[in-house]
Amino acid sequence: MKKSIGILGGMGPLATADLFRKIVLLTDAARDNDHIRIYIDDNASIPDRTAAILSGGADPLPAMTDSLRKLEACGADCIIMPCNTAHYFLPRLQALTDVPFLSMLEASASACRARFPGRTAAVLATKGTLAAGLYQQVLTAQQVPFLVPAPPEQDALMRIIYDGVKAGKSPDTYRADMESVLHALSAQGADYFILGCTELPLAAELLGLHVPTVDPTTELAKAVIRFCGYSVNE
Amino acid sequence: MKKSIGILGGMGPLATADLFRKIVLLTDAARDNDHIRIYIDDNASIPDRTAAILSGGADPLPAMTDSLRKLEACGADCIIMPCNTAHYFLPRLQALTDVPFLSMLEASASACRARFPGRTAAVLATKGTLAAGLYQQVLTAQQVPFLVPAPPEQDALMRIIYDGVKAGKSPDTYRADMESVLHALSAQGADYFILGCTELPLAAELLGLHVPTVDPTTELAKAVIRFCGYSVNE
Repeated sequence: MKKSIGILGGMGPLATADLFRKIVLLTDAARDNDHIRIYIDDNASIPDRTAAILSGGADPLPAMTDSLRKLEACGADCIIMPCNTAHYFLPRLQALTDVPFLSMLEASASACRARFPGRTAAVLATKGTLAAGLYQQVLTAQQVPFLVPAPPEQDALMRIIYDGVKAGKSPDTYRADMESVLHALSAQGADYFILGCTELPLAAELLGLHVPTVDPTTELAKAVIRFCGYSVNE
Repeated sequence: MKKSIGILGGMGPLATADLFRKIVLLTDAARDNDHIRIYIDDNASIPDRTAAILSGGADPLPAMTDSLRKLEACGADCIIMPCNTAHYFLPRLQALTDVPFLSMLEASASACRARFPGRTAAVLATKGTLAAGLYQQVLTAQQVPFLVPAPPEQDALMRIIYDGVKAGKSPDTYRADMESVLHALSAQGADYFILGCTELPLAAELLGLHVPTVDPTTELAKAVIRFCGYSVNE
């Protein structure tokens, strides 16, 4: 029996659309009826995750729980979240339901180990994701060498994510910031880059980046397609 | 009070992702929380609409009704369908619910009248949409001059839609078909083209078409953004 997907989305909306599109394009299908059934709650009312983790911002858990209940009621067989920082709340959400969550971060760590064995990853992510140690934990567990951005590069990443992609601005407004982040981390020994915030694969595409990367949105899409009993179109 | 959207999707999945992305990109928003709440049922189990209209294929109404009920239960304030041919079933679906459906075809006819006053549209669509007269009705009602493809061009359009876009094939496999359709209709007096099947804006983008078009997916996105009380980012 093939399974359906629930996407707990809106964090942000364009990243949710990106995940949806990647699942569709990566599903091995020749007609509409070969695809996976996908329920999405693109819930734009979820408070900012980094603000909640770092600076006492509104708790996103009630709005996320509302979305979880709606996806459960639709009949979703698994839940995924196109927001790396939101994974800080995953254990508390998982405790509320028997529907399994698939982790974008674990899928990404597995891809790092498979594609870049022994090489050093740089974790590009929000301050919330970095402060919570979300990638540090999964990369350590999978024995993937990594380094994290220093404060100036963390500031640049937040500008790219919030003032650039989420604000719908042109990539020219954040090109210099991205170049300085990549340069600084390469100089410290990074061999490749985890685009560990769902706005960053969008930024990379718009900027036409040509550096080795792991895209957690793509890795999550592949993992969920296989979980649901379908084949990945590679 | 701002409204939410329900997308009755899966017809096809890539067209559903395209509509979702266009709504997000066309919404005037500076942060996640400025966006519209969107519920999507990407229901890949809905039987083919053209087959049902033309050749006694399975009735799509039960599966569409299942999606409608799920979107209603989520709390959607309006329903839209990213499938022109599916609008054949809209009156029967609307009779089942108080939640208003917005018509992709009416939004497109309004755009034709506003953007190309007095000029002649060519309706590019599935055989199901053309046989049911869906565009002929709305264009006549809004006094938009139009012409429809002859049988050889209808065959070519069905190949582009089904053997090309829905099958995930390269645009090179349908470039010649698209060129012959545009050439034949231009020769008959068409001034612009309604991309009246949701796979056709995807085909046009992949082919890099440079002819004047009306994209019903974009027009529906703009109409639903305004209906929900938000501004279009033009």
